[in-house]
Formats: sequence, structure tokens, C-alpha cells
Amino acid sequence: MKIDNSPPRGTRDLLPDRVAARDHVLGRISEVYHRYGYHRIETPALEDIRRLRGGEGGENEKLIFQVLRRGLGEDVEAGTPVGDLVDLGLRFDLTVPLVRFYANNHAALPTPFRAFQFAPVWRAERPQKGRYRQFYQCDIDLVGDASVLAEVELIEATTEALDAVGITGTTVRLSDRRFLSALAAHAGLAEAEWSGFFIGLDKLDKIGWDGVRAELVEKRGLPATAVDEVRSVIEGLTGLADQVADRLADAVPNLADEVVSDLATTVGCLADLDSTRPIRWQFDPTLVRGMGYYTGQIFEISHPDSSSSVAGGGRYDRLVGRSLGRDVPACGFSLGFERIVDLIPEVPARSALAVLFEADVPVSHALERARAERARGRETTVLRRSGKLPAQLNRLEAQGFTGFVHLRAGSADGTAEPERPLGADGAD
Amino acid sequence: MKIDNSPPRGTRDLLPDRVAARDHVLGRISEVYHRYGYHRIETPALEDIRRLRGGEGGENEKLIFQVLRRGLGEDVEAGTPVGDLVDLGLRFDLTVPLVRFYANNHAALPTPFRAFQFAPVWRAERPQKGRYRQFYQCDIDLVGDASVLAEVELIEATTEALDAVGITGTTVRLSDRRFLSALAAHAGLAEAEWSGFFIGLDKLDKIGWDGVRAELVEKRGLPATAVDEVRSVIEGLTGLADQVADRLADAVPNLADEVVSDLATTVGCLADLDSTRPIRWQFDPTLVRGMGYYTGQIFEISHPDSSSSVAGGGRYDRLVGRSLGRDVPACGFSLGFERIVDLIPEVPARSALAVLFEADVPVSHALERARAERARGRETTVLRRSGKLPAQLNRLEAQGFTGFVHLRAGSADGTAEPERPLGADGAD
Repeated sequence: MKIDNSPPRGTRDLLPDRVAARDHVLGRISEVYHRYGYHRIETPALEDIRRLRGGEGGENEKLIFQVLRRGLGEDVEAGTPVGDLVDLGLRFDLTVPLVRFYANNHAALPTPFRAFQFAPVWRAERPQKGRYRQFYQCDIDLVGDASVLAEVELIEATTEALDAVGITGTTVRLSDRRFLSALAAHAGLAEAEWSGFFIGLDKLDKIGWDGVRAELVEKRGLPATAVDEVRSVIEGLTGLADQVADRLADAVPNLADEVVSDLATTVGCLADLDSTRPIRWQFDPTLVRGMGYYTGQIFEISHPDSSSSVAGGGRYDRLVGRSLGRDVPACGFSLGFERIVDLIPEVPARSALAVLFEADVPVSHALERARAERARGRETTVLRRSGKLPAQLNRLEAQGFTGFVHLRAGSADGTAEPERPLGADGAD
Repeated sequence: MKIDNSPPRGTRDLLPDRVAARDHVLGRISEVYHRYGYHRIETPALEDIRRLRGGEGGENEKLIFQVLRRGLGEDVEAGTPVGDLVDLGLRFDLTVPLVRFYANNHAALPTPFRAFQFAPVWRAERPQKGRYRQFYQCDIDLVGDASVLAEVELIEATTEALDAVGITGTTVRLSDRRFLSALAAHAGLAEAEWSGFFIGLDKLDKIGWDGVRAELVEKRGLPATAVDEVRSVIEGLTGLADQVADRLADAVPNLADEVVSDLATTVGCLADLDSTRPIRWQFDPTLVRGMGYYTGQIFEISHPDSSSSVAGGGRYDRLVGRSLGRDVPACGFSLGFERIVDLIPEVPARSALAVLFEADVPVSHALERARAERARGRETTVLRRSGKLPAQLNRLEAQGFTGFVHLRAGSADGTAEPERPLGADGAD
């Protein structure tokens, strides 16, 4: 019988080279965030199913892997709602768990609290190229600071983290949910129409203005004049960098002063980076970010080689309150870890030694030699000689070994035989 | 309404200090195994439920978190077996996934293959102190070498890994499943009685010889004379170190020569370590190891401060074959990561700087100062001044900060103000 040994549909086995590349990226990213005072926390993979279905997850709530209650009988009674069979689910993001974590542990955490998370999430997506049912997210969150210090710090740290893994040529796109709301009001849309307006606008990069107009006017019944006004304002503000705060205040007169001054501060602090590590940024009035929970500035980082953004986030001042019972301001950034790993050029080579020993050499000699090399910090693997030597050496080179020692019956003990390089001139 | 924000029953949130301690332990362990040529692999948390129920998991198969099939209707039909509702489950160990991984990817892997795994596993245990429903395992496996080179290397590497995290005073207990089988045959037990004999003997440390005798004779119906013979042999071999192989051959005459010479090799290689990094070990004829899949030498590492072993493993030459279709020799060691973390004395302190800024200082000044410190590699956190300064400084010290900078309205920019130490003499 042929056994299917592949992992479950939509999931992957990660081989050593792939894991090493991922660990390298994670190491560099962690190092940067650590320097900014972000420390890693961990939450369980499973959460209460009611929390996961609580409405913060948008479309992701339809993709939850649901876990069967323990202690059910053998059979299920007729008409049992499927929902009654489950009590837990696998998390679909790291924001829902972060908010629960903060609400559960806030008394033991500093204020403000800087959290770094790196962990798998699960979504029962329809399997397709590049979409996985288990993948990693990497989130940083600053909970407890209401000012744009949080936004600036998160953008500064995240662009530095991307630099550290060798991802260059990125652009930070910046907007503000309060601007979008003010724009909707300015164009004459009623508050009940705003969320539909955001959803339609969010599709702009996929369906263009004609598509957005059709969706908003024909499908959602918004007034055509309002949509045209929105388009005119947005086109006037697209791609701005200089004087963006002033231009915004002019274009949307009902915008609160606070939104304008927040934007001016963020932009001013990003400009301060010009002398040391300049970052490319622009105001993007079409930026929406899918989730309903954002309340202030929102941002994404684009890379020319990736059709979707490599990172995104924003301020969500009212999400913690739904768990904690009182609002706590918060701002977060989520890195598209899988996309970043796909973009990095290469991982530094290792320097590994193979200790090859013939069948007539005692194992203890090979171990002794390896022990001496490892004591000097060298990665050393003990291997039996097998087959033709040149072929074995070729395989070792392909596996990333850089040198070898060949212990033969003549070798008195493991220490005398010299190391030889693997490569063109390394044949025996 | 009071919301329950605790994690699901039997699971934990890990706060930054706890994660840092765990990452420290993992870092040291990984470093050692890496020097031995073990590289990390990763498999998905979910596996096919039929594989998880395949019989290799022993009692753990009763503790699987089962995942509901996607696309079920709203209600369940009468009499639907609960088993029909699920197709995936969360892994309960790292051995079942390793075997599937090897069978799935062997063509792309070197021979022999050295794997390092560090990952969570899930078991729906009855919640009790020290038992968690999600916990980490750390496994190393050497697949494709039939000789005791594997056993010796795994023991050497694992004791070195424990040394590296500061766990001293451990004892390696060593036995061989082939010895236990030969002993059972020698005592006159039929092969069908062996597995019951192993299960009974495995309880010796909990219920003593009287309990084992009662279980084997009264409950399992084994001949009393056989049990007494087993006891007599085992007592004669307990705690041996010198000459163990010869003594074993004398005590159990039907023991295959290969088992005796394997033991002599292992013991000889462990003795080679005496001059550099001596390890304490003993032959333990009562050692069984719970799982049914072991085929050769088995081992555990005990620590005086831990009632259960801190690591355990052995050879399992016929497990890979059940997935791959042909046998591949294999040997593995699993570290009790959670127990090890509980045993380590302490984690090195960090050196972190707090940049405190008063409300009348521009955010950009604080960021500028922090940027300069981070460029030198220092962990630096930007914080608003709040409340009374001495109280805030005390909180920072308790959080692990070692120094602070206090930016006031007078400070022309962020760079001029000197750093001051936190601690007894650090008050403003």
C-alpha cells in the first residue's frame, strides 16, 4: 500500500535550508526590535472559539480551524448545530490574542507595553499558489501610548528591520482613518455609509476608479456626486510628501486639527531620518487597511517585487477596551514574514567540517576528532565513508560542507589527519 | 459584563521575562546541536487524524485535539460518528511528524540525516499543576545510521547541551530493549507476554517490586517464578558501570553478541569523555521507556531536582519503515524543555537604557537620542515622564533598565543630556 506522506493540504514541511533562511531573517528582525525595547511574548495557539468569532477578524472569521470539544460521546444527536461541537479554535492572526493577553496580564506589564510576536497562524483558505493554511506572522505593538510617538517609532523600527534583512527600495504609504471619515463626511456621506465606502475604496488598486464608482453607486447606492467629490480630493492628494499636512487641511476643511498636527509630527520625524537612514514615504489617501478596528494613522510598506505590501499596521485605540472594559490606546505593525523571506537575496554560508571515517577506524577516533573541532566552535559532522570518495565529497560540498578530514586505518588516532578543503581542489 | 480574558484551560500566556528565559535556554541548546551538525526542520502543527491515530502514540492518542472538517453544514445528522466529523488533529509529539517528514522528503535529505526540532505539541490532558495542554518539545534525531555511533553522539551532544544551560549533576541511565526481550525470554516468558511485562516493569519506580509482582502475576497472569527470576537478574545488574557488558552477557546468556558489543562501544565512548567533560552514567536494567517503537538502546537523563527525567530517547529502527515502506534505522533524543527551563538557575541580565522626556520636549528630540544609542547596539526605550520621578525610576529599575536619560525643556536637543545609572544612586 502506498502511504501518502505529504503534510495536510495547504501546509508545508520546511527543510533545513529553508528553516535556516527563516531563522536568519527572524534573528535580524528580532535584534532590531529588541534594540527598540520590544520583547517577545507568547500566547497559546488555541483561543476560545467565541473570542475568535467576536467580530474583530473580518473575513478571517470564516476561515477558523475549529477544535472539537473533548469528551463528546461516540455519536452526535440529530440536529446538533455544528457550532455546539466546538469550544476552541486556532488563532487566525496575532492581534486578537495580543488584546486578550494584554487584558489578562496588564497588571504585570509596564505602561506603555511594547510587545513583539512571532508565531504561526492558521486559516482554512482555499489552497492556491502562495497561500498557506499555516503561516507565520510577526507583529509589534505598542500598547498604552496615545501619541504619534508610537506610529513614528513603529515605522522607524520596521523600516530598520527590513533594511537589516537586506530588503531595500521600500516605500512607506501613510494615511489616517480619521482623514477617510472626514473625507466621507465632507463628500456628504452619512456615517452609516462610511464602512461600505471604505470597503469599496479599498478595492481601488484592483478595480480602478470606474470599478470603485460602479461598486459604490450601483451596488451600494451611494450618491454619484459624493463619489466624484471623493475621487477629486483623493487625486489631488495622491503621492504627496512635501507640505502634506497643510494640503490635507485645505482639501478636507472639516478635518480635526489634531489629525493634521499628528500627520505633521509623523512626517517631521520621518524627515529627521534623512541624514542617517533616509526612508521613502508618501501620503496615500487611497490606503484603507481591511480591518474595521483602526482609529487613527494607518500605514503599509510596499516593495517593487511584491504585489501585496510587506508590512502594514495602524492605530487601534478601541480594541483593547472591548476585552479590558476600559479603552487603552494602541498601535501595531505586522510584517508579512513569508513574503519577506521570499524577497531576501541570500543567507550567509556556513563553515562546516565533515569527519569521514573508514569502516576499520574505531568510532571513538572519529568522535575524538569531532570533539576537538567542536570545542573550537566549528560545526562538525561525523560521517561514515561510503561509496566512491569523489562522489561522497561532491555530495558533501552540495550539502554546504566546506572542509573534510579523512580517517583511514593508518590514522593512529583521530587527531593527526589534516583538514582539507572541499571544492574544486578538494578531491582526494 | 466581566469578560474572561484568561487563555484556554490548561494553556498559558508567556510574559516577556519568561520568554527571554526560554529563548536563552533554546539558544544555548541550539548552538550545541548545531555544532554537532543538527539542523532545525519544521512541520505543520496539524497532521492527518488517521496518522495521529496510527498506533505509535500510545496513550497520547487519547489526548488529541481534533479539528472539525471544513465545509460541514449547519447541523449534524443523527448518529453521525464523531470520528467522521474530523480530518485533522494537533500533533501530540514530534516523532510522528518527524517520521512523516522523513518519508515525504527523504530524496532531498542527506544520509544520514540529522534533525533538530523545537516546537509546541498539544495534549488534552486533565489540567493539573505542571501539566499543560500546549507545551514545547525539543527533539534531535539521527536517521539513517544503524550503528551505536548515533547513540553515543546523541548522548554526548545532549549532555553537552544540558551543561551549556547550566544544568549539572545529571545521570545518564542506559539500557537496551533487546536486553529486556532477552531477559523476558530467559525467564521463560512467551513473546506474547513481553509487552505486558514491559508495561508492568515500567511502573517499578512508582509501585516497587511488590506492586510490579502483583501486577504481573495477579493482573496479567505471568508465572511467579519468571517474575522472580527477572527480579533477581535485574537486582544483580542495577547501577553497574564497570564491566557492564561482560556482566550482562553472564546474567542473560541468550543475549545476542551484538547487544553486548554495542553496549561495550557506547560505554567505552562515554568513558573517553572522562578527560574532557566527564559524564555520570549507569546501566539501568529497569529502564523501559513507554513507547512501543524502540528497538535497541534506550536512555534517559535524570536530575536530582526533577522527579521525572529531563531527557529520554532511544533507537527505533522500524518506525520510519511504516511510512516509507522500507526500514531506515533511526535514533532520537527528546529533551523535556519545560522541565529544563524550570531547573535553570538564572538568565543573564540585560543592559537597557530608558530615554525619559518631559511633555515640553519635542518627541523628535527623544527619538534622536534613542537613535544614537541604538546605533551603538544599546537596547533603548523612549518613555514619557509621568508621575513622580523617583517612583518612575524605581519602576524602570524593577523592569530591568540599567540606565536613564532625562530630557527636560532646558535640553537643547536629545544628544546633550548625560546617561545616569539606575539603582541606589540613580535618583534624580
